[in-house]
Amino acid sequence: MSDYEIFDAGDVVLQKGATLRDAKLAYKTYGTLNAKKDNVIIQPTWYSGHHTDVEWTIGEDQALDPRQYFIIVPNMLGNGLSSSPSNTPAPYDKARFPHVTACDNVRLQHRLVTEVFGIERIKLVTGWSMGALQTFHWGCLYPDMVERIVPTCGSAKCSRHNFVFLEGVKAALTADDAWKGGWYEKPPTKGLRAMARVYAGWGFSQTFYRVEEDLKLGFSSLEDFLVAFWEGFFIHKDANNLLAMLWTWQNGDIGDNELYGGDFKKALAGIKAKAIVMPGRTDLYFPPEDSEIEVANMPNAELRVFESYYGHFASSFLNPADVAFQNEAIREILAS
Amino acid sequence: MSDYEIFDAGDVVLQKGATLRDAKLAYKTYGTLNAKKDNVIIQPTWYSGHHTDVEWTIGEDQALDPRQYFIIVPNMLGNGLSSSPSNTPAPYDKARFPHVTACDNVRLQHRLVTEVFGIERIKLVTGWSMGALQTFHWGCLYPDMVERIVPTCGSAKCSRHNFVFLEGVKAALTADDAWKGGWYEKPPTKGLRAMARVYAGWGFSQTFYRVEEDLKLGFSSLEDFLVAFWEGFFIHKDANNLLAMLWTWQNGDIGDNELYGGDFKKALAGIKAKAIVMPGRTDLYFPPEDSEIEVANMPNAELRVFESYYGHFASSFLNPADVAFQNEAIREILAS
Repeated sequence: MSDYEIFDAGDVVLQKGATLRDAKLAYKTYGTLNAKKDNVIIQPTWYSGHHTDVEWTIGEDQALDPRQYFIIVPNMLGNGLSSSPSNTPAPYDKARFPHVTACDNVRLQHRLVTEVFGIERIKLVTGWSMGALQTFHWGCLYPDMVERIVPTCGSAKCSRHNFVFLEGVKAALTADDAWKGGWYEKPPTKGLRAMARVYAGWGFSQTFYRVEEDLKLGFSSLEDFLVAFWEGFFIHKDANNLLAMLWTWQNGDIGDNELYGGDFKKALAGIKAKAIVMPGRTDLYFPPEDSEIEVANMPNAELRVFESYYGHFASSFLNPADVAFQNEAIREILAS
Repeated sequence: MSDYEIFDAGDVVLQKGATLRDAKLAYKTYGTLNAKKDNVIIQPTWYSGHHTDVEWTIGEDQALDPRQYFIIVPNMLGNGLSSSPSNTPAPYDKARFPHVTACDNVRLQHRLVTEVFGIERIKLVTGWSMGALQTFHWGCLYPDMVERIVPTCGSAKCSRHNFVFLEGVKAALTADDAWKGGWYEKPPTKGLRAMARVYAGWGFSQTFYRVEEDLKLGFSSLEDFLVAFWEGFFIHKDANNLLAMLWTWQNGDIGDNELYGGDFKKALAGIKAKAIVMPGRTDLYFPPEDSEIEVANMPNAELRVFESYYGHFASSFLNPADVAFQNEAIREILAS
């Protein structure tokens, strides 16, 4: 018994050349599509997250209110629910899973939205982190369809520093011999735990740790936070899935498609949607400076920064003040 | 033929209980000790660096001018020249090398300075990164001996975030099965390279990578920078040495000794030396906020920030503007 639907997309030719045969897009919807089909919100998932991980943003007390909106959460390829290294049959299984771009993801999501639901207009796309990457893609790939976007703590293109951060994450995971180049039978747990520890320093800000926010969140010590929160998250993930999505992240670039021919600024300029771009002031891998550059090149965008020491997690459920700030921005743009 | 001297310290009882028998402190001096013995500068080394790595700061065109000053560079325990896992005989060799604190290091350096040279006054202690950690220790352990300190891009205590960053570095190195808990015969090169890649994101700022400063420094691509600069540095280091110094770093705390009984602020207040504390504006693991807290608790200190996008490397030789800024501060404090 799963709590989500599958869109059977058939054979999908990917941007980098491979064909993902019998492609599956797992998704879940919340609320009801109205008769005019003009109450649609799309929320793509973040790195390794499932639709269940973003459900906290949806509710009667949240900006994404299912009484009013029809909210579609498509699971990113590689996340273990949609087609992924862990669930794709041979020969494209495991380490041989093909390279998938954010563009591939969003084009597949577009097929879901149009072929399954017959939707022609999208009121809002919003997402956190790699969800923001997909949100930007929605804006520039379907500029006449997407009315509003709110990307949070993410970017339209993987910056060089962000790329380097991910090289460290990848190197830690793959340093474990048990990874076996991706052909493991048992999970490379040492590598997964190492990856988690590398991630821990990047996820939250220096101030977060200085003021012992981890303890305030209920963890009994710093080490408990590293084990229970960080290792506890990654240890249950499939290593090849993580590496597949990491490739998607590192190669994220809204300009890298035939519409924009590699021209990043042209792609930003192509986003017609009204936008509120929301970086976190202390996000260590999506610093607000990158968002400023994006907003300066978008025709209809506002920069609105989470003034928070939660770092990349300013757009998570952890900090009530950040949650309120995000809800306010989304309510405001939906009302405009 | 070595270019440095060895101070044979005999059996040294360490702060955490072990005895480092036949302890060796490798050091090099530059310039001439004057008759009054009042022209002494000490520059401790940084994480995994040797005295040769700080020699660029010493010269007739630098603030540390050997025509005027007698400069002593003591090599940190664990760095491969002073007593280290790689050169200590059994049974305290390799993975069994004892835990050494920054306090142990500085007390040993104090013995060198007093027993070998009969020095009673120190004009200046300065150092980068873990060299700054030792510089702070000099100030609080020997407040009546040390006249001036200039710690750069470092701290008097390892912050919780810095600790987490180092957990990631350590996890990447030790994820390699070839590490064998420290009992390797061949170097765990995969782990050393992984550690280097983790470090790469932390060492320089987001802006450094955004403006492609790595290419301006002469590297042919981002990957070339990761391999040639980062892997090229760590691949030649001994893994146990790196882990020993990492322990020293993670456990650095000027308050953690019988003089101050664990009271960090009391230890800061105990530093009588005139101080210029120099963090880097974009240093990701020693952010200026930590230095501000230190300076606020020191009786005679000024905060002077490298306004640089070189991150932690603002205090390295890489950026001429930063070098000039640092020389100016050191010349100014020496003249005061």
